[in-house]
Amino acid sequence: MGRVTVRKKVLRIRDSTVNERVDTLVAEEPLEIRVNGAPLSVTMRTPGHDFDLAVGFLAGEGVVHRAEDIRAIRYCAGATEDGANTYNVLDVDLASGVAPPDASVERNFYTTSSCGLCGKASLDAVRTKATWSVAEDDVRVTAQTLSQLPDRLRKAQRVFDRTGGLHAAGLFTESGELVAVREDVGRHNAVDKVVGWAVRANLLPLRARVLMVSGRASFELMQKAWMAGIPVMSAVSAPSSLAVDLAEESGSTLVGFLRGASMNVYAGRWRVLLEKASIAPLTAPGGLRPGQ
Amino acid sequence: MGRVTVRKKVLRIRDSTVNERVDTLVAEEPLEIRVNGAPLSVTMRTPGHDFDLAVGFLAGEGVVHRAEDIRAIRYCAGATEDGANTYNVLDVDLASGVAPPDASVERNFYTTSSCGLCGKASLDAVRTKATWSVAEDDVRVTAQTLSQLPDRLRKAQRVFDRTGGLHAAGLFTESGELVAVREDVGRHNAVDKVVGWAVRANLLPLRARVLMVSGRASFELMQKAWMAGIPVMSAVSAPSSLAVDLAEESGSTLVGFLRGASMNVYAGRWRVLLEKASIAPLTAPGGLRPGQ
Repeated sequence: MGRVTVRKKVLRIRDSTVNERVDTLVAEEPLEIRVNGAPLSVTMRTPGHDFDLAVGFLAGEGVVHRAEDIRAIRYCAGATEDGANTYNVLDVDLASGVAPPDASVERNFYTTSSCGLCGKASLDAVRTKATWSVAEDDVRVTAQTLSQLPDRLRKAQRVFDRTGGLHAAGLFTESGELVAVREDVGRHNAVDKVVGWAVRANLLPLRARVLMVSGRASFELMQKAWMAGIPVMSAVSAPSSLAVDLAEESGSTLVGFLRGASMNVYAGRWRVLLEKASIAPLTAPGGLRPGQ
Repeated sequence: MGRVTVRKKVLRIRDSTVNERVDTLVAEEPLEIRVNGAPLSVTMRTPGHDFDLAVGFLAGEGVVHRAEDIRAIRYCAGATEDGANTYNVLDVDLASGVAPPDASVERNFYTTSSCGLCGKASLDAVRTKATWSVAEDDVRVTAQTLSQLPDRLRKAQRVFDRTGGLHAAGLFTESGELVAVREDVGRHNAVDKVVGWAVRANLLPLRARVLMVSGRASFELMQKAWMAGIPVMSAVSAPSSLAVDLAEESGSTLVGFLRGASMNVYAGRWRVLLEKASIAPLTAPGGLRPGQ
């Protein structure tokens, strides 16, 4: 535990200057998640907030929704060569009545028995699992508030400053206050850690919240946001086509290329409030309603 | 096919200017990889070079090493509701004598039956699978050549310019000539596509080659490089601790934070040739030898 960073000697080349120094690297270790004793998944992650990660992962698959769904979580003990705990295997004990996931489909729960796998099938698979409706969440966020999130997320990243190597996910209120932040070498893990924290605090669905992610907005991140009941997701970089499709399908708001006062709104634009000076062209009929 | 990008209407906010425009997004769709008819993995990927992706994925797991290991690859046909091929399910038919992967362990092949899972176990798992030794590959690359790779990779990215949303992997000669480039919404996929291309062209092991990746250098990317016999990996961003461990374990060279004339060499520094002016401090005894 506490192995979030590792120090290594590195040869540093800056133009014609070369020297050796000690660099701080982000730690990456495997984490095996077991459910009721059965292996479910192995992910490469940055150690720390592992319980959050495991619970968030299970929430993303629709297995757990609240703290009571989990009876206990523990690190499996004492099985390395020298008998020490590696803190890399977690067993999640579900409450009775909570159905464990089907381990055979692992992280991707597309149970295709035919060749019909397509983007639409992926959307359908998520919709089937989704517990919360986000389409009716009528929270509004100003563009100004959104523009402050990347900076606030970055400032809350404790490990990034030392390593430059971590993705982050931050949960914010609609007025831009930071609720929770998690970092990880994997961007899916950072989101799982935030959502898992919220599940364990019994905060789902995360109504009126904004999830800010440091990288791109992929289908899987959008899926995790929906599964947690988060109505707005914003990303520093580009969304994928399927992420936008899923945002539209779920009635979420998706903001990409969020950099300073610049951003693109890909879906659910009615939740984004603009400066008074700019509202005019957008209040045209049909321009700001849900579902468009 | 040919669905590499998708066009979507987007609300574009630039300071106080707001307008609607059509934005080009990178496509993301699921791809199911089957081996000898049995489902192995589903990955979210950007369509295109799917055969390369499937073959590269299998090479990364140590299943295939050369073109003859594959008898045939085909898209499963005709199973959507309207009978059309989605081009999202591939079946790879292995040559006789080539053992298919164990589907139950999926993308992560850590077959832990105990709680001993740790970074070292991950390194061991890769070493067991590795077919090629890269430690003896005595290629040298100048820092100046390395400094040109990010720009060359970016220029070779055809889709990125339109979408801003794609990872890239480029294979270069030791003098910096581009051999192959592939793009994907997932960085693992971009590397799989490059390696798969090389397998199908019977180019493994990729001796004296440099693999340049657009993002971070993770354990899994390092693993894929080793499995393809590539001696040098360079990345625009930070490596993880376990990626450096694996580079040291394999005897590879790992360069991170490669930006213009700046870079950090994390492992295998003896392959990086410096400007004459700078060589002096590094020719000290033990400073530039393999294994340090």
